[in-house]
Amino acid sequence: MKKIGRQTVAFTHPPVIYTAAAVAGKKEAQGPLGRAFDYVQEKGEGSWEQQESALTARAARMALEKASTAPEEVDYLFGGDLLNQCAGTVFGIRDLPIPFFGLFGACATFGEAMSLGAMMIDGGYARQTLCLAGSHFCSAEKQFRFPLGMGTQRPPTTTWTVTGCGAVLLRNEGPGPRITHVTTGMVVDYGVRDAAHMGAAMAPAAAQAISAHLRETGRNLTDYTWIVTGDLGEVGRSLVCRLLEEEGFYPDSRLTDCGLLLFDNHAQDTHSGGSGCACSAITYGAYFHPRLQTGGHRLLLVPTGALMNLTVSQQGESIPGIAYAVAIEGGM
Amino acid sequence: MKKIGRQTVAFTHPPVIYTAAAVAGKKEAQGPLGRAFDYVQEKGEGSWEQQESALTARAARMALEKASTAPEEVDYLFGGDLLNQCAGTVFGIRDLPIPFFGLFGACATFGEAMSLGAMMIDGGYARQTLCLAGSHFCSAEKQFRFPLGMGTQRPPTTTWTVTGCGAVLLRNEGPGPRITHVTTGMVVDYGVRDAAHMGAAMAPAAAQAISAHLRETGRNLTDYTWIVTGDLGEVGRSLVCRLLEEEGFYPDSRLTDCGLLLFDNHAQDTHSGGSGCACSAITYGAYFHPRLQTGGHRLLLVPTGALMNLTVSQQGESIPGIAYAVAIEGGM
Repeated sequence: MKKIGRQTVAFTHPPVIYTAAAVAGKKEAQGPLGRAFDYVQEKGEGSWEQQESALTARAARMALEKASTAPEEVDYLFGGDLLNQCAGTVFGIRDLPIPFFGLFGACATFGEAMSLGAMMIDGGYARQTLCLAGSHFCSAEKQFRFPLGMGTQRPPTTTWTVTGCGAVLLRNEGPGPRITHVTTGMVVDYGVRDAAHMGAAMAPAAAQAISAHLRETGRNLTDYTWIVTGDLGEVGRSLVCRLLEEEGFYPDSRLTDCGLLLFDNHAQDTHSGGSGCACSAITYGAYFHPRLQTGGHRLLLVPTGALMNLTVSQQGESIPGIAYAVAIEGGM
Repeated sequence: MKKIGRQTVAFTHPPVIYTAAAVAGKKEAQGPLGRAFDYVQEKGEGSWEQQESALTARAARMALEKASTAPEEVDYLFGGDLLNQCAGTVFGIRDLPIPFFGLFGACATFGEAMSLGAMMIDGGYARQTLCLAGSHFCSAEKQFRFPLGMGTQRPPTTTWTVTGCGAVLLRNEGPGPRITHVTTGMVVDYGVRDAAHMGAAMAPAAAQAISAHLRETGRNLTDYTWIVTGDLGEVGRSLVCRLLEEEGFYPDSRLTDCGLLLFDNHAQDTHSGGSGCACSAITYGAYFHPRLQTGGHRLLLVPTGALMNLTVSQQGESIPGIAYAVAIEGGM
């Protein structure tokens, strides 16, 4: 049994993150990580949904090309996005002849995909898995909130859905950072009902996953160079810190959020920070993956998701959250 | 490496389907399998979406109760449904303290869940996994087609989304049928654009998964007592037979479809047959699971999914399909 606790698995043969591709939109390229993206879609073609699928197709292809790997050599593809029925992913990857598992973990999908992709390799079912997650600002706003053309005022707690797609190719051997542990989240619902306050909806799930990971591995916050949530933003980050303090963990500046790294919130008017499936996926590829090429650093990546459905929200339901913690160790 | 082909895994320690729970709606209870369901929701409470979540909650609880297992003893929960953002599942299982992987495989989700749930056990990550999929006629029609109140005429090729939820508890040991192989589907797109002709959209994916399974295991159709697709209906079944014949496999009456077993299409006016995530999930629990309690039978269960998104369909996109083949052997 490879489980070392209720939610955590420690890998016997830690899978390697062999390549990472981060594809982004124009606004993302204007932010602090702008120069680090592998490709920037300046102006997409077709509908917003088609543009989202194009980003996904490109990220998948780039992760494969960097590894000089053909789709036929990949054992499984794990992926998802925010669009209903994971349409961004399905139409982005349908030309790839790879056995496919479609996932829905809301904005935590990148963590869910990496977790399952890594377990498939360590479990002996795969030599290579492709794991990806994407999102698009326009298609997400249209689907979850208001059509952009309405020019609706956004409250300060809102986050900005990232346009882009991040893909990683996991492999059973080779150089690169390694996934050593995965801690799988449970659905956590604190009763938040405000779709403009996603950081609050997700913070309890993030705190639950991080504290479970630390307890079950016997580690402390200081065992990591970075503990990085997916898309809580400024408001959500302060909440997760308070919740962790209640559990006896006292975060410092090593605990940050991909949504805070990706945008300059004040200059770019993104309010509380970046969000969406692509937020953690492209921040990993552009910021952390290069820094983990050599040893000495440890990252706990914790993509966070708000499991909101518009229909049941309008019926008065709350927005439960989920988070997946993935422990990654730098290596050559 | 446990893969015996591009898409197929053979298990070293075949996981047991320890319990199965099949929860259904009123119309399903009036069909041929009516007496075999574990629970019939005569009249649900709240919105259609809330009723769908209630079915999921009940199926999950019943699969656990039959095994005298507490949620805390289950390592992972794999599940999904047709509602946007898997809302039927999320709100149905949020009270269960089980690490959760949300899936979207459209109506093939039950096969996707069983595949991953079985790999987690054989791979040594879990002793018990709960795998489920649900759907609801009213919430699905409202979301994908027309509000029921419009009384829209349904063409003869349409299928009838099954109201219900099927859950299975997989275990690493014990009595019960065993999952011996899983064959993971790829996205297959033949360009079908008619949302009232789902059988045609899914048949190519079903034929691809079945023929890959047979080729990679070296088996023939006659090695199985039943080869059962998820929800192709009458029209889709005839198409999958023709596609298999082109591959050199000649199906007889052992190839059938859960959508044909679940309803009496003529008496119940369900046109081409049953469909939806619950179609294969509750047919497995009510019909096949009892028949697989003793040895001598082999089932190839092939849940089928149409990866349709309304927005991109209205933009002119086609409806790709996917299918997951799960080989199950009867046992004590």
